[in-house]
Amino acid sequence: MNEHIRFDRDALELHLLDQRLLPEEEADFACRTPGEVITALQTMVVRGAPAIGVTAAWGCALAAAAGDESEGWQERLTAALEDIARARPTAVNLRWAVDRLRARWRAAGELSRPALLELFLREAQAMQDEDVAACKTLGRFGADCLEDGDTVLTHCNAGALATAGYGTALGVIRAAVEQGKRIQVIADETRPFLQGARLTAWELQRDGIPVSVACDNACALLMQKGLVQRVVVGADRIAANGDAANKIGTFGVALLARHFGIPFYVAAPLSTIDPQTADGAAIPIEERPAGEVTHISGRRVTPVDVPVYNFAFDVTPAALISGIVTEAGVLRPSYGPAIKAALAEVL
Amino acid sequence: MNEHIRFDRDALELHLLDQRLLPEEEADFACRTPGEVITALQTMVVRGAPAIGVTAAWGCALAAAAGDESEGWQERLTAALEDIARARPTAVNLRWAVDRLRARWRAAGELSRPALLELFLREAQAMQDEDVAACKTLGRFGADCLEDGDTVLTHCNAGALATAGYGTALGVIRAAVEQGKRIQVIADETRPFLQGARLTAWELQRDGIPVSVACDNACALLMQKGLVQRVVVGADRIAANGDAANKIGTFGVALLARHFGIPFYVAAPLSTIDPQTADGAAIPIEERPAGEVTHISGRRVTPVDVPVYNFAFDVTPAALISGIVTEAGVLRPSYGPAIKAALAEVL
Repeated sequence: MNEHIRFDRDALELHLLDQRLLPEEEADFACRTPGEVITALQTMVVRGAPAIGVTAAWGCALAAAAGDESEGWQERLTAALEDIARARPTAVNLRWAVDRLRARWRAAGELSRPALLELFLREAQAMQDEDVAACKTLGRFGADCLEDGDTVLTHCNAGALATAGYGTALGVIRAAVEQGKRIQVIADETRPFLQGARLTAWELQRDGIPVSVACDNACALLMQKGLVQRVVVGADRIAANGDAANKIGTFGVALLARHFGIPFYVAAPLSTIDPQTADGAAIPIEERPAGEVTHISGRRVTPVDVPVYNFAFDVTPAALISGIVTEAGVLRPSYGPAIKAALAEVL
Repeated sequence: MNEHIRFDRDALELHLLDQRLLPEEEADFACRTPGEVITALQTMVVRGAPAIGVTAAWGCALAAAAGDESEGWQERLTAALEDIARARPTAVNLRWAVDRLRARWRAAGELSRPALLELFLREAQAMQDEDVAACKTLGRFGADCLEDGDTVLTHCNAGALATAGYGTALGVIRAAVEQGKRIQVIADETRPFLQGARLTAWELQRDGIPVSVACDNACALLMQKGLVQRVVVGADRIAANGDAANKIGTFGVALLARHFGIPFYVAAPLSTIDPQTADGAAIPIEERPAGEVTHISGRRVTPVDVPVYNFAFDVTPAALISGIVTEAGVLRPSYGPAIKAALAEVL
């Protein structure tokens, strides 16, 4: 599973596990150009904020590799990096990763293109390794929020597949299981892309962690029945005040959890926190193609010419979040100062 | 559309529009035996509480037609009627319809089988006609709850297809449009059977009423954006205290509507009210086959051997309901006395 994002240095190829085909098929999606990486990001061959960040970093390396040193190569490469940074708007890890490479480039001063490629490859690998490490660390912190016997509801996939490995929300669950706690998981199926039904169920089943799938709209009933003790989700961007953008539907789950008095946690590495975004209202919400809603498995389910809504994310206000689980510990309200302190520590 | 439940008296055949195949295909599902009617009910060829009731009544007529007058035919027919009444557990209209025929039979005293068949045919037709009339009346009452320019969110399909014609929730919308109000509709897609995406969108598009489809989990975001002014849904059973069972997800929509201060109406004929059921806790909730969740359009979306939840209904507490729209008017809290008075009036 750590290998769902794998860079082949000899061939200069990025190999992604094509998440669109899971759980039925485990197929490789190979990228040789930054354009192919952008396609992979936009069509959700790979998704999940931390995984998007690491994939983008490898895409930048491919961009550095793709060309000679003729006049203006730095400007052309800079433009190519910006194209990658703009591939998707909501997950801040994407721009974070590209910005980090640009900063390293600036810091290194004048570099030949091969030297820059070497720098980008090293840095992308570092980001990939750091992301796994961050997930394991935040998982351990978050595991303390779960109790033996809990059933945890999660929305979308914030697992190994959404990160470089181990996962954020699922990292918390994995760490709790490693601590010997008996944890069951309910995976919201997460329309329209079905990340929960397809990806979360697949990952957890492979790890032997008991998982059931429920349609998104079963949430209120399952909570009413007392079948859910905790909610843990990931995030695509956390604003400076703790408002958290995540997969569409998360906000509704958070409101229902509040109604039923169920603790609601967001798990994300610090790279998902964007101190430049003051609050949730400033987070851009991606609208994705209608076809994701109108068709399922290639078959049309809505009448022709009926419009659909396909906002990919919503924002859960900080006030509904019991804790933000990061590799710097579990942040608690009020999140403004807690986030500032956590970010200051790692800088 | 009135013809989606059509009984052919000459051939003694019930013709149903197969709702499993909409919107792609408009196919006829013919029933010649009560067993075929039970299959149609259980596999959701036809669904929606009032439509289930009318279909069951025609099924009883087919049961009356299916046999001779040999010793014990009344007992065998009584058992066949009970089989129909048990086809699905939640929609009270099913048992209500069968009970009504049984009461007519008892009241008529000793009857030959052909005479009983005639009685059942007449009564089934009466129920079908009354249901359309009830929908049109409740639609007019409910229309007064909508304002010109409203966007109404509805869950599942409580339309012509869910009734003998015109619809309950969609009857309210149709009546408002007939009054000259400009109404737009957002149809929750309503997993797993996709009644909203497939049926509500199809019906409203045919009537020229603007409709958009959204995944169930977009509800909180759409409400937060101010895109929803009213919620109107149907019901499968309303308890004596006003608690209302309806398609899974309705309860969550009601909680979100309350959070955002959006009026939430339940529209249903009086035949959906069950005075024998004290409150929502006493309403049996059907669990349906896992395959509805694990497969979409015949393609598996969850990993093999991962269990799923498939509760078909949930119960919205009376406290979350702004009004119950019936053919006796719009009932308002407290619902216990309001329901008692409405039912007393029609007896």
